[in-house]
Amino acid sequence: MAAAFELSRLKIVLAGARNPLNIGAAARAMSNFGFTQLRVAHPYEEAFREARSAVGASEILAKAEKYDNLAEAIADCSLVVGTTTLRNRELQHPCEILLHGAALIRNHMARGQAALLFGSEKVGLSNEELSHCHWLMRIPTREEHPSMNLGQAVAVCLYELARDAAVVRPVANLETASAESAERMTALLLRGLRSSGYLGRDSGASTEEKIRRMVRRLNLSAEDAELWLGMLRQMIWKCEQENKK
Amino acid sequence: MAAAFELSRLKIVLAGARNPLNIGAAARAMSNFGFTQLRVAHPYEEAFREARSAVGASEILAKAEKYDNLAEAIADCSLVVGTTTLRNRELQHPCEILLHGAALIRNHMARGQAALLFGSEKVGLSNEELSHCHWLMRIPTREEHPSMNLGQAVAVCLYELARDAAVVRPVANLETASAESAERMTALLLRGLRSSGYLGRDSGASTEEKIRRMVRRLNLSAEDAELWLGMLRQMIWKCEQENKK
Repeated sequence: MAAAFELSRLKIVLAGARNPLNIGAAARAMSNFGFTQLRVAHPYEEAFREARSAVGASEILAKAEKYDNLAEAIADCSLVVGTTTLRNRELQHPCEILLHGAALIRNHMARGQAALLFGSEKVGLSNEELSHCHWLMRIPTREEHPSMNLGQAVAVCLYELARDAAVVRPVANLETASAESAERMTALLLRGLRSSGYLGRDSGASTEEKIRRMVRRLNLSAEDAELWLGMLRQMIWKCEQENKK
Repeated sequence: MAAAFELSRLKIVLAGARNPLNIGAAARAMSNFGFTQLRVAHPYEEAFREARSAVGASEILAKAEKYDNLAEAIADCSLVVGTTTLRNRELQHPCEILLHGAALIRNHMARGQAALLFGSEKVGLSNEELSHCHWLMRIPTREEHPSMNLGQAVAVCLYELARDAAVVRPVANLETASAESAERMTALLLRGLRSSGYLGRDSGASTEEKIRRMVRRLNLSAEDAELWLGMLRQMIWKCEQENKK
């Protein structure tokens, strides 16, 4: 099993969890496999409170961080992976099966922080939530019954991630841009597209999600992200000068 | 995933389960991973009844077989494997970690029936129950917190048993942008940076090379390259309108 400091680089993020038993089960699986960082994004308040106050609630649960929105919950992560069953959803992202996806996440953990997202019990991750992801990961379940219980899905993913975490390969690579700077780039690009007239003022959420996904696919390094932010700012300034006239 | 006839050769045996939610969770994980044969040995009557009558209880649960004792539940199996955390128990049996144990069980399933035993939530398998086993299998959990939730333990074991590296499906990979379109993007970006004033009119070859390398690092797909060309053209048009004034 990998060093503890390394497993702490993976944030397990539950988005919109409704059932306190599932939140508790996720925390228990984390403890079984040595992960410590649990975050919940826009949870049902009562579910989160109940899970924390349950008899035998773990230290992980006590220290779990609550965020009002997903963007904040993943801001410090440079890799964001969403879990999905792909049921009833068009494939907008590359999708890896767990075996390979876990290897990619482990590689990333050697040099930066990663987030693994699980959606609500009822509907999984929404399109808006998925648009924050670099890629998706799927547990190879049966097509006729792909949808897993949340606590069980967390356990299976963490088992695979911890299984031979000892063989994390160091990759000589650039530091990847954080989700926060990818999101800043998304916001600036949208502003540029609006001020240039590429997008109408009233372009909707689906356009925004499309642009967000596209920015994530760039897999920018931290350095390149800064460069892009500077270039976009200047182009926006110019476009907005024109619009003032 | 192995042929269905083969997965039906594995009997999942819950011995002394007390919690209907756990029995239901075990059945759900079986369905997710394609296993069909659930047996419960000396269960708490009420737990078993409740699990079967739960809303959304699966066919697997409806067909689950109840046995008064473990010997009957495993009578037709030629391999019996017990799951354990090894906590507080002397090792009387050979013990395999899940990865290796699953491979041995799969080999056996090619020619005969096997049983995988899970003990009660409170105490696991008793020494009497363990004595029916050929060997034991252990999920590699953390020493400080080895004991898993029953439903999660079943899910992890069945994931490993169903995982088959031979049937890994290739990731839907996107066609990469040609060098030609990467170069068009470079040219447009340089033009945009000049017309916005980010670069001086006389910025030299080294700046051009820096931008070219940066565009190559994006590793754009053919589709994304087209999208970027369109966005840049519009922003440039806007910037140049301003410059004409």
